[in-house]
Amino acid sequence: MRTVFHDQLDAVFDELAAICRQVETSVRVATDALLTGRSDLAEQVISGDAEIDRARERVEDTAYALLSLQAPVAGDLRIVIAALRMVSDLERMGDLSVHVAKIARLRTPNLAVPDQVRPTINKMAEVAVAMVARTAEVIRDRDVDAAAALAAKDEEMDALRRDTFAEMLGADWTAGVEPAVDVALLGRYYERIADHAVTIAGRVIFVVTGELPVAD
Amino acid sequence: MRTVFHDQLDAVFDELAAICRQVETSVRVATDALLTGRSDLAEQVISGDAEIDRARERVEDTAYALLSLQAPVAGDLRIVIAALRMVSDLERMGDLSVHVAKIARLRTPNLAVPDQVRPTINKMAEVAVAMVARTAEVIRDRDVDAAAALAAKDEEMDALRRDTFAEMLGADWTAGVEPAVDVALLGRYYERIADHAVTIAGRVIFVVTGELPVAD
Repeated sequence: MRTVFHDQLDAVFDELAAICRQVETSVRVATDALLTGRSDLAEQVISGDAEIDRARERVEDTAYALLSLQAPVAGDLRIVIAALRMVSDLERMGDLSVHVAKIARLRTPNLAVPDQVRPTINKMAEVAVAMVARTAEVIRDRDVDAAAALAAKDEEMDALRRDTFAEMLGADWTAGVEPAVDVALLGRYYERIADHAVTIAGRVIFVVTGELPVAD
Repeated sequence: MRTVFHDQLDAVFDELAAICRQVETSVRVATDALLTGRSDLAEQVISGDAEIDRARERVEDTAYALLSLQAPVAGDLRIVIAALRMVSDLERMGDLSVHVAKIARLRTPNLAVPDQVRPTINKMAEVAVAMVARTAEVIRDRDVDAAAALAAKDEEMDALRRDTFAEMLGADWTAGVEPAVDVALLGRYYERIADHAVTIAGRVIFVVTGELPVAD
């Protein structure tokens, strides 16, 4: 009975890692849409989100079945709940990539991001994609060290976000109000994607070590 | 045994309603800080958030104990999981009110919100506070009709957010880039508070009727 349970739990974590790779693609393509102004890429992200939502439902159904049929206690119970929370985080990350794509679509064929702040936004997107990719590995390998390392990447993201504010509020900003509004929101979306990656990493640490993650 | 379980579940929902009223206060005071420039009010929200986090931990501990000791199945199991999700939503709403307070603190003693968009932001805050207050009642009374009515309020919030964009991007906007960045983020925070209220209402509908809420 316990073996069936743990096999099923492994299958849930494999599915979580697969969803995380879908999210990685979504963030990557949304960023391509943003930096090229290509509406077809934006549409691809927006319509593709339904697939992430369906994958989330599958994980939830499996997790509920595990809880109902196997009635795990203590550590096992907390692992299943952690999996349910991780899939919520992943689904939110998918939503946030859709928000990025929608800003791209709103300005297409023009670019939402003015040249002046393009390197910083590009870097934020790279950090976000790298963090999501690493998160998929963390889930797959239950890699506690890699999970802990994600927090350092998140500090890089926070520093980049401060850079965007400095650029927008500096005397050199000539792009006006509309791009500033877009960039403020884009910065928030990438930052939140990174936050969720760190939260998921914390949940993996908890699953492996039994240590409670800090509040998310 | 079942009676003990349901008594404990009722206690969890009472605690959720109490946390929701704390969140209501937090959103209200953060808005006061924002519209008056009073840093003491901003600090009150920022330091008060720890209390919401602690209340969240208490609910989680109780929910885990319920799951471990009583091993509920089917509907009861889903109700406990719904409670765990609701407390996550409430904690995020508290965080979002802290974000509002931090923008207030950043500009104090000046006002982050320029006169031109003040009525719209004020209205957004009023709608948010009303929605959070209503959500506390929805949780306390398991009121499905009131829960469904929250979705209509959320449309009002979305319309107000569109108004802020129209105001910032209109030819009349003379406040410049910095207030536009602040207002863009404030609009996002109030909108997210409202989103979480609707999500919680959906979870209450699910708890009462057994109908799955739409994906959050």
